Amino acid sequence: MHTAVSTSDLRIDGPRLWQALMDLAALGATPKGGVCRLALSDLDRTARDLVCGWARAEGMSITIDQIGNIFMRREGSDPTLPPVVTGSHIDTQPTGGKFDGNYGVLAGLEVIRTLNAHGITTAAPLEVVVWTNEEGSRFVPVMMGSGVFCGAFTLAHAYAATDTAGKSAGDELKRIGYVGPQTPGDHPIGAYFETHIEQGPVLENADCVIGVVPAVLGLTWYDCTVTGFESHAGPTPMAIRKDALQVATGIMQEVVAIAERYPPYGRGTVGMVQVMPNSRNVIPGQVKFSIDLRNVSDALLTQMNTDLEAYLEATRVRTGLGIMLEQVSHYAPCPFHPVCVDAVRDAVAALGYSAMDVVSGAGHDAIYVARVAPAGMIFVPCKDGVSHNEIEDADPGHLEAGANVLLQAMLKAAGPNF
Amino acid sequence: MHTAVSTSDLRIDGPRLWQALMDLAALGATPKGGVCRLALSDLDRTARDLVCGWARAEGMSITIDQIGNIFMRREGSDPTLPPVVTGSHIDTQPTGGKFDGNYGVLAGLEVIRTLNAHGITTAAPLEVVVWTNEEGSRFVPVMMGSGVFCGAFTLAHAYAATDTAGKSAGDELKRIGYVGPQTPGDHPIGAYFETHIEQGPVLENADCVIGVVPAVLGLTWYDCTVTGFESHAGPTPMAIRKDALQVATGIMQEVVAIAERYPPYGRGTVGMVQVMPNSRNVIPGQVKFSIDLRNVSDALLTQMNTDLEAYLEATRVRTGLGIMLEQVSHYAPCPFHPVCVDAVRDAVAALGYSAMDVVSGAGHDAIYVARVAPAGMIFVPCKDGVSHNEIEDADPGHLEAGANVLLQAMLKAAGPNF
Repeated sequence: MHTAVSTSDLRIDGPRLWQALMDLAALGATPKGGVCRLALSDLDRTARDLVCGWARAEGMSITIDQIGNIFMRREGSDPTLPPVVTGSHIDTQPTGGKFDGNYGVLAGLEVIRTLNAHGITTAAPLEVVVWTNEEGSRFVPVMMGSGVFCGAFTLAHAYAATDTAGKSAGDELKRIGYVGPQTPGDHPIGAYFETHIEQGPVLENADCVIGVVPAVLGLTWYDCTVTGFESHAGPTPMAIRKDALQVATGIMQEVVAIAERYPPYGRGTVGMVQVMPNSRNVIPGQVKFSIDLRNVSDALLTQMNTDLEAYLEATRVRTGLGIMLEQVSHYAPCPFHPVCVDAVRDAVAALGYSAMDVVSGAGHDAIYVARVAPAGMIFVPCKDGVSHNEIEDADPGHLEAGANVLLQAMLKAAGPNF
Repeated sequence: MHTAVSTSDLRIDGPRLWQALMDLAALGATPKGGVCRLALSDLDRTARDLVCGWARAEGMSITIDQIGNIFMRREGSDPTLPPVVTGSHIDTQPTGGKFDGNYGVLAGLEVIRTLNAHGITTAAPLEVVVWTNEEGSRFVPVMMGSGVFCGAFTLAHAYAATDTAGKSAGDELKRIGYVGPQTPGDHPIGAYFETHIEQGPVLENADCVIGVVPAVLGLTWYDCTVTGFESHAGPTPMAIRKDALQVATGIMQEVVAIAERYPPYGRGTVGMVQVMPNSRNVIPGQVKFSIDLRNVSDALLTQMNTDLEAYLEATRVRTGLGIMLEQVSHYAPCPFHPVCVDAVRDAVAALGYSAMDVVSGAGHDAIYVARVAPAGMIFVPCKDGVSHNEIEDADPGHLEAGANVLLQAMLKAAGPNF
């Protein structure tokens, strides 16, 4: 019945993957070509039902845990091995795209369909997981399902989250019928792979098809406040001004300079600025702004934070102005596991796709999973690096390539010698 | 009846001047020690009535023009000479102080009281003028009375100005009974002096009592827009960003650098900044900000504007980002007349006050008067350089000194050899 094929020659069915993506994207489709399918909404239920139906049609069994994470399982030949898991999420931003999350789940399903079509049984079982509420658009915290699974916060905390209408995540999960019996985290994972659009411009810019993801950047978020003295722009000579904006812009320039001193993964961004009183002919008395520093290792990120603090202290001394720095958030860098990263790297090499290392700057369920299991990610380009936007787009050939890499990486991980 | 005194030994009565200031400040007094007496309000009428009453009590005649400017006249001995005029305004900002404007009018009245007390008659007539609506808080344009007087705009334009309640300046002027018969500008001025608090920190900073004002700074106002590409702070490497804020802060630093290259009167200020989308983890796609450049001469201000344009062009080429510069306002520098500036300088020297040249960075009625007559100004310090604020404050001794300088300058200008 099946064509005899070496597993190394096995390829997924690109048009079938694309069709699945388009069928799922129809649920919550927006006029501009995007998708609005908020976590734990009726549309989320419909989408979960559709994906579970596809899994059952492939002979997979389904386990749901108490936070609504769905594990769709294809058995292997060795029942003593933990499953090799892949997946992502199918909730979207309010003005989200077709590929963010959905691609990770449906690439996993396509791997299963391919193995079924060729009658190939792996040693370890394979699972495709749908994590609950990755986006956090409707209920905070983000990456809720994987966060509870990995113990980042409690099930009770997640249940208590409310949307703007006052509805709780716990009630809504129950309402859509996706509270399962399994205790979150009480589910072994041998290895975890997640395919995702890059959500950045690096691959497209380098004309590469596959991103091997060695790590997710850590970040520190600050609020910085510079306090000078508000005075009139005309009568006040330059030498005796206490211009809060002039000092603040110096710091903003330094934020970028610091990031550039720690390449290739240093990032420094000022995204938010508030000038007071914000009047054309008044020298600003106070400026508040955000600082976002990122890098790939604890050591580098710490060094960037140290550099920033040293610059601010020198600026305080030099200018005499008040400079306050308040840390508002910190996430440590997350290196992915070498065995998973290497499995992806080997698969790419064997398949001959153009590839490069790309760190992830955004959050993904894989970050939480990495706390409890070896994990890795596979990126494919997205058009203009745009995501979280209805115009989010990706090339069918790139999506197919990413799923082939996933297939080969999972085959390796599910083999006897992983 | 009068003590025989040489005019060079003549001094004004400091406590009497202070009392007049306090009496006028009672009209519209605010709990925080300031004054709220908007142009053409009932309080403005009461204040005008009070000042006119004081003038009549000193034997002065009163002429009012069609825009409500009040000329209070003390005759001289030579009816062929045009009057030497001093004055300012008695309307205030909504949260204004006691001294802005009021000091200029009441220092003039104090000069008249001093001459009367000593029975001294000048050759030229002397006049104290109250200009209508200098502040522009309720009705725009600012410096309305002197502006119409000097032909900067028409009487009809001024009358048509409306406040936020929809009332017109023309109707309100009529309502308070201060539409006079004289055609604005149809009134000779031999020389004009205006005493004023500095509204800046220069005198206080230098511990000087008197500011000789050679000129008012000219200014150019711009709106600048930098357009980059909005993208996520995490996934986008530094090298391929189009960070509109990073480019904008460079320009903001340069605005200050340009001003510092043209001392001592160069001024460069960015007062207003708008960042889009103004989100912590998004690289700004667009930044709009104001630029305010000032200097004392046309040549210097033009050079500053040229420097700015050259920097922007170089920045366009270097960064590839869109940079738009739109001029929104321009006032040419206003040098005061040498005979008036020298009259002030000579008076200061004879009186022995500490003094320095201070350019005016703010607008005053004297700027418009300088278009039609020799004009000059006398500055005294104000506390912390603060004005347009209820906490505006000035030292009685400084106010007295400024009025003595005014007295001596007017005596010189009203003498036969000016």
